[in-house]
Amino acid sequence: MLRSTISSLVPRATSVARHMSNAAKLTTVEINDVTGIATLTMNRPPVNGLNLELLTDLNNSIQEIEDNKSRGLILTSSNPTIFSAGLDILEMYKPDKERLKAFWTTLQDVWLALYGSAVPTAAAINGHSPAGGCLLATSCEYRVMLPKFTIGLNETKLGIVAPKWFMSSFLSVLPRRVAERALNQGRMFTTDEALRNGLIDEVANSKEEALAKCAEFIGSFSKVNPLARSLTKQQLRAAELSELENERAQDLEKFIFFVNQPAVQKGLGIYLENLKKKSKN
Amino acid sequence: MLRSTISSLVPRATSVARHMSNAAKLTTVEINDVTGIATLTMNRPPVNGLNLELLTDLNNSIQEIEDNKSRGLILTSSNPTIFSAGLDILEMYKPDKERLKAFWTTLQDVWLALYGSAVPTAAAINGHSPAGGCLLATSCEYRVMLPKFTIGLNETKLGIVAPKWFMSSFLSVLPRRVAERALNQGRMFTTDEALRNGLIDEVANSKEEALAKCAEFIGSFSKVNPLARSLTKQQLRAAELSELENERAQDLEKFIFFVNQPAVQKGLGIYLENLKKKSKN
Amino acid sequence: MLRSTISSLVPRATSVARHMSNAAKLTTVEINDVTGIATLTMNRPPVNGLNLELLTDLNNSIQEIEDNKSRGLILTSSNPTIFSAGLDILEMYKPDKERLKAFWTTLQDVWLALYGSAVPTAAAINGHSPAGGCLLATSCEYRVMLPKFTIGLNETKLGIVAPKWFMSSFLSVLPRRVAERALNQGRMFTTDEALRNGLIDEVANSKEEALAKCAEFIGSFSKVNPLARSLTKQQLRAAELSELENERAQDLEKFIFFVNQPAVQKGLGIYLENLKKKSKN
Repeated sequence: MLRSTISSLVPRATSVARHMSNAAKLTTVEINDVTGIATLTMNRPPVNGLNLELLTDLNNSIQEIEDNKSRGLILTSSNPTIFSAGLDILEMYKPDKERLKAFWTTLQDVWLALYGSAVPTAAAINGHSPAGGCLLATSCEYRVMLPKFTIGLNETKLGIVAPKWFMSSFLSVLPRRVAERALNQGRMFTTDEALRNGLIDEVANSKEEALAKCAEFIGSFSKVNPLARSLTKQQLRAAELSELENERAQDLEKFIFFVNQPAVQKGLGIYLENLKKKSKN
Repeated sequence: MLRSTISSLVPRATSVARHMSNAAKLTTVEINDVTGIATLTMNRPPVNGLNLELLTDLNNSIQEIEDNKSRGLILTSSNPTIFSAGLDILEMYKPDKERLKAFWTTLQDVWLALYGSAVPTAAAINGHSPAGGCLLATSCEYRVMLPKFTIGLNETKLGIVAPKWFMSSFLSVLPRRVAERALNQGRMFTTDEALRNGLIDEVANSKEEALAKCAEFIGSFSKVNPLARSLTKQQLRAAELSELENERAQDLEKFIFFVNQPAVQKGLGIYLENLKKKSKN
Repeated sequence: MLRSTISSLVPRATSVARHMSNAAKLTTVEINDVTGIATLTMNRPPVNGLNLELLTDLNNSIQEIEDNKSRGLILTSSNPTIFSAGLDILEMYKPDKERLKAFWTTLQDVWLALYGSAVPTAAAINGHSPAGGCLLATSCEYRVMLPKFTIGLNETKLGIVAPKWFMSSFLSVLPRRVAERALNQGRMFTTDEALRNGLIDEVANSKEEALAKCAEFIGSFSKVNPLARSLTKQQLRAAELSELENERAQDLEKFIFFVNQPAVQKGLGIYLENLKKKSKN
C-alpha cells in the first residue's frame, strides 16, 4: 500500500493543498507504509529531459526523503520507455546566463545529494538511460533494468566531454578498462551488455518487478545500523564527493565557457533542428 | 620439518628460557627448514579476539619474521573453527584510557607491518574471519580458505564504521562495486562466495592443504629478486600505507572519541550481555 | 592500399630524400589511404630493444601521427616473434652519463606521448612483449595478440623495480589484485592467460588479422566527435600523466642512481655475459 510522503508528514488539513502543489511538480515521492521505502518518480514528458525545473524537484525530493528518515530511495520514471534522456539541450542552446548558472549548479546539487545520500539508493531503470540518465542511475547503489533498453555515458557521440564527476559514478561501478573505453566510445550498453559488464545488477521483466528487486536490495540493510551504514558509504564516496565540492566554481565556469563556444552552439542548433524533423515524421 | 624461529636463532643455552617465555605468548612462529617459510599462528582461546596482548605478539612476530629474512609469512590460527573473531570488544567496553590508546596504536602497527611487509605473505584461513580477522587476511597477498566458513568486514552490522585503512586492504582485493556494497551491508561471504568474488584465491579441504597452497604461492617468488620484489610491493601499497602513517594521531583520536560515545558504550554492553547469555546455553 | 606518411605530406620533389632518411630510421609509419589509420612499426633487429635511437624514432613517429591528424595509431613490430624485448640493457651497462640521461628522458617522452595520445591507439602484439614491450602495449587503448607468445612486466625477475608510471598503464588494464601479484611475481602471461585476465582484448591468428582487428577497434570511433573523444581520454588519464610530468626530474635521478649501483652493474654484466653465451650456441 502506497501513500504520498507529503500526506504522511503533514496534518490532514493541509494535505490537500500540498497535493495540489505537488501536481505541478515534475517528481513524485511515494513512501511504502510497510517497508518505509520512498519511490521517487521522474515525470517530465516527453523524455524526462533534465531541465532546471526537473533538477530542482529532484533535488528537493531527495532532500525530503533524507529528512523523512526513509528506509531507502528508489529512483524511477513515469515514462514506459525512457528513464531519462539526460540533460535538456534547450537549457544549453542560446542560454540565459543566470538560468544556465542555476541549471548547472542544481545538477551539481542533485549529484552530490544522490551519490552522497545517507539512505540506501537503487534505480529501477524502466527505459532508455543515456548521458545524464546514466549519471543518475550510476549514482545509486543498485540498478535493476528492464530488457531491450540502453544505458551509457554517450557524451562523446554528442561532441561533449562528460565532467569528471559524471565519470566518478561510472568508474565506481565498472572496471577501469571497460569504463575508459566506453567513455571514449560514447558506448550505449544494451540491457544484456550492461548486466554482463556490471553496469547494472539485475534484469527485471516489468517495472513492478524492478521496483520489487530494488526494495529487496534495500531490505538487505534491515539488520544494519543505519548511522554506521551511512558513515561507511560516505567514507567510501568521500574522495569523489569532495573533488566536486572543492571545484564547484571552476566546474561551473568550465561548463559555461564550453556551452558558449560558437561551435557548440552551432552543433546544438543542428541537433535540435534534426530532433524537430524527426518528431514531425 | 618444522622448528621454532627462536631455537634456530639463539644459542642453545638460552633456548629453553626463550621457549618458556614463548609459552606465555599468544602467537607462535615456526620456520620450515626446507622452504624457509615462517608460519605465524594466532593462539588466543577461545576465538583469537584481537586484544592488546595478541596484537603486541602479532606485531613482534611479524617483525621477527622480517628480521629473520624468512622466505615468506603464512598467517593462520590454532583454533579449528575460528581464524580470528576480530577486535576484542572488552578492550573497548568501559576502557582504561591509556590501555585503549595502546590497543589502537598496536592495531595500527600490526596493519602497517603486515600490509607493508617486505616478505611474501599469505593467509591460511582455517575458520571464520569477520571484521579484524578479515582485515588481517586481506592484508596478506594471498588467501586460502577452508570450506563452510565466513569472511567479511561486518562492522556496520555491529554499529561500527570500519576505518579507511580497514577498507584499503579490502578494496585492494575486490572490485570497487562489490567492496562498497559489502562494506555497506556488513556482508559475510561464505567460502564459495569469497572465492567467486576474489576475496580469497583458493579453497583447501584441510589446514595442511591450506598451508601447502600458501607455501606454493610463496614459492612462486623463488626466481624473483627479493629486494626488487619488496620495493615493487611497497611502491604499489605506498599510497594506502602513507595515508595511515600521516594520519595516525587523528585516526587514534577518532577511534577514542567514537568508543567513548554513550550510545556506543551502551551498545557494547548489550552485545557483551548477549554473548554471556549465549555462552551459558 | 598503404602509403608512407611522409610521401603523403611532403611535396613530391623532396619525397625521395625523406624516404632515404627514413631508411635509416628504426620505425616506419604507414597510413592507410582508405581508413586514415597509421601503422607504426618498430624495426630494430634483432629484438626491438628500446635504445635511445629506437625511442627517439618512436617519439618522433608518434608526434608525426598526431600532427597528421591520423584516425588512429596501430603499434606493431617487423619481427615475426618479438614485439619488443624491452629496454636495451646495453644502455644501462657501463653507461655514458649524458646518453643515459637522454635515454631515460626519451623513454619518459614516449610514454607520455603514447599513453596521452589524442588519437585512438591499439597494439598488434605479434611476438613476445616483456617489460618495456608490455609498457608500450598497455599504454595503447586496445591490444590484439598472436597465439603462443608472452607478455608482462617481469622486472622483478631481472632484479629491477618498474617505475610507478610503468605500473600505471598496467593497473589501468588489470584488476588491482591481479596486477599487484603479477608485478610482484614478474609474471609473464601467455596469450591465453593475458586474454582471460583482460591484459589483452583479442587474439588473432596472424599479423594481418591482428592489424585488421586493431583497425576495427579504431573504427568504433567513427561516429564519435574526435575532440570530445581526446579530451575525455586525457581527462581519464590525467592523474597518471601529471604524476610523471610533475616528477620527471626525480624519476630520472632515481633511475640514474639505481643504474649506477655496483650490484646492479654487476648483475647487468652477468646477464649480458649469459646472453653472449646463449647466442653462440
